[in-house]
Amino acid sequence: MTTTEESSAAPGGREVSEEQRRIEERLTEQVVASFAGAGDARLREVLESLTRHLHAFVRDVRLTEQEWKQAIDFLTATGHITDDKRQEFILLSDVLGASMQTIAVNNEAYRDATEATVFGPFFVDDAPVVGNGGDMAGGAPGEPCWVEGTVRDTDGTPVPGARVEVWEADEDGFYDVQYDDGRVAGRGHLFTEPDGSFRFWCLTPTPYPIPHDGPVGRLLEAAGRSPVRAAHLHFMVTATNLRTLVTHIFVEGDPQLEIGDSVFGVKESLVKRFERQSPGTPTPDGRDLGDRTWTKARFDIVLAPAAGA
Amino acid sequence: MTTTEESSAAPGGREVSEEQRRIEERLTEQVVASFAGAGDARLREVLESLTRHLHAFVRDVRLTEQEWKQAIDFLTATGHITDDKRQEFILLSDVLGASMQTIAVNNEAYRDATEATVFGPFFVDDAPVVGNGGDMAGGAPGEPCWVEGTVRDTDGTPVPGARVEVWEADEDGFYDVQYDDGRVAGRGHLFTEPDGSFRFWCLTPTPYPIPHDGPVGRLLEAAGRSPVRAAHLHFMVTATNLRTLVTHIFVEGDPQLEIGDSVFGVKESLVKRFERQSPGTPTPDGRDLGDRTWTKARFDIVLAPAAGA
Ligand SMILES: [Fe+2]
Ligand SMILES: [Fe+2]
Repeated sequence: MTTTEESSAAPGGREVSEEQRRIEERLTEQVVASFAGAGDARLREVLESLTRHLHAFVRDVRLTEQEWKQAIDFLTATGHITDDKRQEFILLSDVLGASMQTIAVNNEAYRDATEATVFGPFFVDDAPVVGNGGDMAGGAPGEPCWVEGTVRDTDGTPVPGARVEVWEADEDGFYDVQYDDGRVAGRGHLFTEPDGSFRFWCLTPTPYPIPHDGPVGRLLEAAGRSPVRAAHLHFMVTATNLRTLVTHIFVEGDPQLEIGDSVFGVKESLVKRFERQSPGTPTPDGRDLGDRTWTKARFDIVLAPAAGA
Repeated sequence: MTTTEESSAAPGGREVSEEQRRIEERLTEQVVASFAGAGDARLREVLESLTRHLHAFVRDVRLTEQEWKQAIDFLTATGHITDDKRQEFILLSDVLGASMQTIAVNNEAYRDATEATVFGPFFVDDAPVVGNGGDMAGGAPGEPCWVEGTVRDTDGTPVPGARVEVWEADEDGFYDVQYDDGRVAGRGHLFTEPDGSFRFWCLTPTPYPIPHDGPVGRLLEAAGRSPVRAAHLHFMVTATNLRTLVTHIFVEGDPQLEIGDSVFGVKESLVKRFERQSPGTPTPDGRDLGDRTWTKARFDIVLAPAAGA
């Protein structure tokens, strides 16, 4: 067996011989064929596609054996720092934009329905009912923020009784689940009024870094990237026969919007004005905030129909 | 923002709207752009390509949020079973053919140089010198096997003093590092004679499964794949100014060659005849094997020039 004089561009632009190209392609096809006996057709489809893309990556960059070993070590360290409280593989998926791409694929744009964004690791199932006009802050430190809006369907019909879950970090960048004392703060839910409206107090969102003392943090540093997330307020909105919406609103003017959100969650339609109010400005519900500033934001939500609804 | 009536085939053949396609592509480009500040140009290249292929995979299969979560759980379990003795990420890379593709990319065919294959996790650095004509088996159970051959360069010139490392599993499918008692067996090295020749006793290779009681084993089972490796004898051959060769030889007639080697290590040029000898057949070196059968194989090795040599 001898190499031919012919050569062709490798997928990544490097020149490899025709014979070499055939050897590499044949290997990929052999691995793809190995999944022919998978009992589940979807599993087979996913593994075949994974194999093709993984092999194309190795071939495109002409991955060295040393780099392959570094990748194995990186994944091993990512596995070892992961436990019940720390999920480094989700962080990895987030910073590579794979989480956001999965969101994109599963939440296709539908007319003027509100856009979805990443779920994040800080939601908890049993957040308290706070009720319309109540305070989601739960005593967490930060600047008070009044949020109001409506939930409608894509025909413009108000959706009464929609469940609106809200969660956020405090002004130090911590969610309650990151506190030591197990208290609940910065989260809660309410149900929309008969006219689809909702309103609540919370905290003006502030930027915070994702956990960056592990392998993913080191990757971001080597890549010259900030671990900081643009300031945001999480929402999950559920209503009968409508597609569940998981999203955030972001804060207009937040400098991190320019630097870049570390998990690529920002969509222009989700950036909202949080209007800062001088101390003493009357609040919508007469709440006395003394000499503190506060902010006011509006978020009108449009839910797409549920799949098959 | 409303969806257009236009649509186009998604990379995987599913129909998505033009708007949706643009949203997904824009996200990929945004993540790629985030690596622009990487200090190391090669790191940047690798991360950009990884991002493109990872996103293309998510888009091609229209990965569901549930499947994404299963992938996170799978990687987490893979990380948690990995320790100093068990490397499940290497197994994962192996069964997806990524290890073998990396070998292929880094060991391009060169004239009639002997082909490379996977290194595997069972090599150890300090295997004993056994010497020409000695027995690598070291007391491990199995059928005796005589191997002889030569090491030459691609001009056909014999290579004297080449270091030939050999390692293999015993007839029960275990390498010595899998024994409880720490003894060394089934491995060793020698140096070629002035005429490039070598010869040694070892054990006739037998098929063995890769460790399959973890996430990778469950993946293989779901995919309807065998965890068994075709019977093989590992070689690593090093010589001055020549490319180090890491390879195996396989056993002609081994049924696992038809079923498929679980890590895709087989190359036709590496399948050798191991001729079984009746009890009492005189051995090449006069060794008395009593009433036992034995086998005889020949492996002539050709080393490519070292890069830059
Ligand atoms: Fe968050
Ligand atoms: Fe092996």
